[in-house]
Amino acid sequence: MTNKNNYCVIMAGGIGSRFWPFSRADKPKQFLDFFGTGRSLLQMTVDRFRPIVPVENMFIVTNVAYKQLILEQIPDLKESQILCEPARRNTAPCIAYATAHIRALCLQRAYGYTQEEQGYTKDGKLKGGSAASLLPSYMDIDWTKPEMQANIVVAASDHLILEEETFRQTILKAFDFVSKNKAIATLGMQPTRPETGYGYIQYLKSTKDEGTMYEGIYPVKTFTEKPNLEMAKVFLESGDFLWNSGIFIWNLQTISEAFRYLLPEVADRFREGELLMGTDKEEEFIEQIFPKCPNISIDYGIMEKADNVFVLPSSFGWSDLGTWGSLYELSEKDESGNVSLHSAAQFYEAKGNIVTLEHGKLAVVQGVDDMIIAEQKGVLLVCKKGEEQRIKQFVADAQEKYDGRYN
Amino acid sequence: MTNKNNYCVIMAGGIGSRFWPFSRADKPKQFLDFFGTGRSLLQMTVDRFRPIVPVENMFIVTNVAYKQLILEQIPDLKESQILCEPARRNTAPCIAYATAHIRALCLQRAYGYTQEEQGYTKDGKLKGGSAASLLPSYMDIDWTKPEMQANIVVAASDHLILEEETFRQTILKAFDFVSKNKAIATLGMQPTRPETGYGYIQYLKSTKDEGTMYEGIYPVKTFTEKPNLEMAKVFLESGDFLWNSGIFIWNLQTISEAFRYLLPEVADRFREGELLMGTDKEEEFIEQIFPKCPNISIDYGIMEKADNVFVLPSSFGWSDLGTWGSLYELSEKDESGNVSLHSAAQFYEAKGNIVTLEHGKLAVVQGVDDMIIAEQKGVLLVCKKGEEQRIKQFVADAQEKYDGRYN
Repeated sequence: MTNKNNYCVIMAGGIGSRFWPFSRADKPKQFLDFFGTGRSLLQMTVDRFRPIVPVENMFIVTNVAYKQLILEQIPDLKESQILCEPARRNTAPCIAYATAHIRALCLQRAYGYTQEEQGYTKDGKLKGGSAASLLPSYMDIDWTKPEMQANIVVAASDHLILEEETFRQTILKAFDFVSKNKAIATLGMQPTRPETGYGYIQYLKSTKDEGTMYEGIYPVKTFTEKPNLEMAKVFLESGDFLWNSGIFIWNLQTISEAFRYLLPEVADRFREGELLMGTDKEEEFIEQIFPKCPNISIDYGIMEKADNVFVLPSSFGWSDLGTWGSLYELSEKDESGNVSLHSAAQFYEAKGNIVTLEHGKLAVVQGVDDMIIAEQKGVLLVCKKGEEQRIKQFVADAQEKYDGRYN
Repeated sequence: MTNKNNYCVIMAGGIGSRFWPFSRADKPKQFLDFFGTGRSLLQMTVDRFRPIVPVENMFIVTNVAYKQLILEQIPDLKESQILCEPARRNTAPCIAYATAHIRALCLQRAYGYTQEEQGYTKDGKLKGGSAASLLPSYMDIDWTKPEMQANIVVAASDHLILEEETFRQTILKAFDFVSKNKAIATLGMQPTRPETGYGYIQYLKSTKDEGTMYEGIYPVKTFTEKPNLEMAKVFLESGDFLWNSGIFIWNLQTISEAFRYLLPEVADRFREGELLMGTDKEEEFIEQIFPKCPNISIDYGIMEKADNVFVLPSSFGWSDLGTWGSLYELSEKDESGNVSLHSAAQFYEAKGNIVTLEHGKLAVVQGVDDMIIAEQKGVLLVCKKGEEQRIKQFVADAQEKYDGRYN
């Protein structure tokens, strides 16, 4: 049975421009059946959490444009579980919103006021009466109440995880840790190659001085940006660095306090309307305050600044699927190292290519090596694998020339 | 005004496998809008003849599978002007059929019997009565009757001709020539490069011994097969060789007699049912005898054997559009020598490519040179221009593997 104190927040607002033309503005990467399994990356992500998080405790933060698509793909979610961002503001405001929403639900239960007591008065003002008086100030929240116990995992909707049971055991271990410690936990992937496409986490293996009581959970020393190849090799050889997976685990009190102290300019905006969360005024409120939030990542805003960050070095076949190259590495290849993801394909004097056409099509590829050949909804991309970082430029060029027709 | 004695026979039975996947078994090359002009090659061919051949004197020989497509593309043709081949038997039977059909129409008019007098009796036998007695034997046909005057041009439906007025003037000159001489005329293209994809015609420039009275019309010495590059260079330098365009001009009597003497095994089969031509029994008759015809080209069966073959050296921007390479040569290129035929395209570090996607699509091509990139109806081909002769093998492989799904 899933623990009712376990929550997950799935971030699904990305526009996936790196996989253009396969992923498109109207249906980005997380909504695509990337591997022809019949399930989108988002569906795979939700399914991965089902054994450890009750479905009613799952929240998906996304752009309002994708709300219907999510309800179609995950039909057992309620509309209120889709938290819509009216603007793109990176991960810190996204997570602050989800945190505020979950906290409001917990406070409702802990302090016994109802949704009907919340909301605006008829003249559009925040109710100042009974409900407001029920909402305790930060200082007065009794975090020991059973209703305030919430272990939250935050994860992207468009990553690949191959060993799902290992993943879940790791999350459960982290839940246990953060439920007993005022700790911010993150999963660090054991690196297998000098990858320049990921950020790295340096951690303190010795637990003598700064350690935890938990085996396999270590204090984080620093977060680093994506390194160049030389630096990535040093990281790999040192053994002290892990890939930053962007999967975070904490409890409600810890993250609430972290936002309050480290990002008050974000936290205060959401706190202001906490009474409106879960009411029909939530959307209107978020539309007002969300665009005013600074564009800031959770890594920069919280992780790099907090002094209580811990990492669980992990190995469960993870990829952020951030590049065609990473997708190529993960995919089944023929004897010439060619990958065909969704369509039939014939290769002649061709090696190291990755091909994805719309389902049911046939690709015949002769005489090219190490290319991306991707076709979707009226756009064909033929591009060297080593040049894929330029795809954003190609999209921008097409946008300018064709007025967004091929976005 | 068009001359009522002028006829054209357009051969439109090809399956165009060299342009797969752009041309497909259900819609070969001649039916495609190759250059994005809004007109198919067949429509362009018919239009090219309209100023010099009355529309009722146009006949299109094709496979029965394409009859409806032709009637849609050329709506002012009558169904009886589409001559359907029940089997693929190369050009000699195709032209023999068209010749027999035109001859039957002329004989009807010249000898005054009606369609109602033709055909089978109720027990399925050929009428032996009035109609049969009206049909003169070959020996007895009075070719001087005005109704028997028919100047015929035979041409492919899938060639490109850039200077159409020059083309028509050349055809009219040939019509004049063949109406006054028992001559088989062909148009020979002035070669501009040592092309190995065409057959060549060697002709006698000196008209002293074997010449005609016509300026610019010369006796043919030999037809040659496609040469290798070395030989093609010799041909080009000698000045005595022309490209074999496959465009023939003759009058009805000359070609009738040529078939009778040089290919009686073909001619006799059609002669047998000449009374049925133009009746509702024509199709049934052709279905019986056509498949029995030998598979033989007009070049091999008639042109190379006849002693009255003349050539008009011509220049009107002709291409048989037989290869992607020839199409590339003819097409407008960007500053890097890239061609995009029907779709929008963006090229980066790419040169010498020819791209054709379905109309309205966008191609983004980076980092490849001299490739064919063609996409149509569920098939994408990426192939080096220099390897295009292997496309037939690719089609065959796909046929075997996918049971004709991508033909």
